[in-house]
Amino acid sequence: MSSSHVLALDAMGGDNAPDMVVSGANVARVRYPNLQFRLFGNAEKLEKLLRRFPKLAQVATVVASDTVVGASDKPSVALRQGRRSSMRLAIDDVQEGKASGIVSAGNTGALMAMSKIVLRTLPGVHRPAIASMFPTTRGESVMLDLGANIECDANNLVQFAIMGAAFARSVQGVRRPTVGLLNVGSEESKGHEEIKRAADILRASELPLDFHGFVEGNDIAEGTVDVVVTDGFTGNIALKTAEGTANMYSTFLRATFRRSVFSKLGYWMAKPALLALKRRFDPRRYNGGMFLGVNGIAVKSHGGTDALGYANAIGFAFDMMTQGFNEHVISDLARLSGGAADAAKAAAQ
Amino acid sequence: MSSSHVLALDAMGGDNAPDMVVSGANVARVRYPNLQFRLFGNAEKLEKLLRRFPKLAQVATVVASDTVVGASDKPSVALRQGRRSSMRLAIDDVQEGKASGIVSAGNTGALMAMSKIVLRTLPGVHRPAIASMFPTTRGESVMLDLGANIECDANNLVQFAIMGAAFARSVQGVRRPTVGLLNVGSEESKGHEEIKRAADILRASELPLDFHGFVEGNDIAEGTVDVVVTDGFTGNIALKTAEGTANMYSTFLRATFRRSVFSKLGYWMAKPALLALKRRFDPRRYNGGMFLGVNGIAVKSHGGTDALGYANAIGFAFDMMTQGFNEHVISDLARLSGGAADAAKAAAQ
Repeated sequence: MSSSHVLALDAMGGDNAPDMVVSGANVARVRYPNLQFRLFGNAEKLEKLLRRFPKLAQVATVVASDTVVGASDKPSVALRQGRRSSMRLAIDDVQEGKASGIVSAGNTGALMAMSKIVLRTLPGVHRPAIASMFPTTRGESVMLDLGANIECDANNLVQFAIMGAAFARSVQGVRRPTVGLLNVGSEESKGHEEIKRAADILRASELPLDFHGFVEGNDIAEGTVDVVVTDGFTGNIALKTAEGTANMYSTFLRATFRRSVFSKLGYWMAKPALLALKRRFDPRRYNGGMFLGVNGIAVKSHGGTDALGYANAIGFAFDMMTQGFNEHVISDLARLSGGAADAAKAAAQ
Repeated sequence: MSSSHVLALDAMGGDNAPDMVVSGANVARVRYPNLQFRLFGNAEKLEKLLRRFPKLAQVATVVASDTVVGASDKPSVALRQGRRSSMRLAIDDVQEGKASGIVSAGNTGALMAMSKIVLRTLPGVHRPAIASMFPTTRGESVMLDLGANIECDANNLVQFAIMGAAFARSVQGVRRPTVGLLNVGSEESKGHEEIKRAADILRASELPLDFHGFVEGNDIAEGTVDVVVTDGFTGNIALKTAEGTANMYSTFLRATFRRSVFSKLGYWMAKPALLALKRRFDPRRYNGGMFLGVNGIAVKSHGGTDALGYANAIGFAFDMMTQGFNEHVISDLARLSGGAADAAKAAAQ
């Protein structure tokens, strides 16, 4: 069994861990019959849970860990005090080559800090970024960074563009992804210096992506581009703003159907269609914050998700592992620096 | 007639100007019987339009202007070449005291540049900001800056907080508005330096507002605070992201009801309730970008709105004019600098 089919799970991370994690792994087991799991956490609890899922038990190994990283622990504290935690040992497992990816529904900051320290970054990557998929009018897109880097320079944004496009190519199967830089206007003169410089570099480079130029906030949900690139501050706020707006809308919609006997009847008539709409926006479908740029595969699941959502996070890790995501990033980054060297050479002549 | 009841309208700004502007003024005339209008633009066209609205003609004066600021003109070009434009002459009117506010559905950048140059800022204000109201789960809130200032320091953010709270108090009638700084987390350690310093200043100050601390993107639609404060880059992207998400949701909802005979029937049963929902989110209700901090009242209407939306933008200007918005800002800013002086004195002892 190749390690590209072994996934380390931080079984103690998440609101309903370890039950949710083990049930999620059991859902993923059916979808990915070649996948094997290494479950890190309280051995007694995990063994007991596995007795409920005998088929999962056949492809899962329990690895005992003593402690758990707290949901509100600072990353620096988790790094110092969490060396024997389920999260850390699962990441160590990837570093040691026993697994090729890790999924955790635990503390995001700690997971990113540990992944960076233990796995380090891919050759050429300055800073890893968090990416996530989201529904759009046209289908699905990916956005990064969602909060790993509060301040970014032009080169960080260019690398995010490359990593986001590599994700769209390898995992989503988009042959030549369109990439947009999130800005306050689409004209070239708009925005701050770093974003303009990033646009200049992307425009001049020869990469396996179509640089669309600047996109605005409304372009996110419209699906104007396959990959939306921004700094971690803006990306985090944009993503949560979109989630909040969608929640408000569905809250009001539910209240609307409760307004009268007629609207209640209307709801029952339209129920199958409305449930299809609900499934379309189901946050569990998009559950997975991919840590792009670390030397290994690391995916963060929402802490409050259920088994189905967790299985989807496992699916993202599986796809990145088996579709050669990291190899794409390495070769595209080399292409960029090669192109930059050529440009410098041409300029010097 | 006091000038606080005279409004200058850039009758040539907007997609369907001047028809939309004159029709909008006619809607506002009914709502605000004391309001008088000075319409800037093509005199022939405006006189002709006013013949359709004899009651509006009684409270409106046409002021001829030669040119129109183009929708895509750069602010610097508009400033140099637009001295005889409807937009500029309307702003000059406010500066000369003939009107106490201006509404325009024209070029936002040009309107802000001209307002700053001609009207200047209120005493103590470093930089004006663009604010807008938006619907939330709990009611309505106001957010600023929405794009006037791409980069902001801590003092800018503090002033935006004061201006936003003064708007909520004077125009929305919120006795003691809650104010939140938009950030990537609610813990004090989150975010960049400027936002942390702004929080420190607001926490230490004695102002007629309740400083809530940091809020996140999802808090915008949840209505966690009355006033959301952020820099113009983030605010512009957050606002457009929310608009885009709401549009996507209603696009899918429309498609959902068209799925089957049953869902179509369901739509007809629930139609009154669904129309109430639609009205709740009607962008025309929130049409008005208030330029807070300029020495005068300036409100930007969406270019693509209709008479009803334009009348709402006029309503915001009217409320700011008559509810003493600018006086609130001046006295609150004085209070802040007084408080800061006291704090410095205390520290020196």
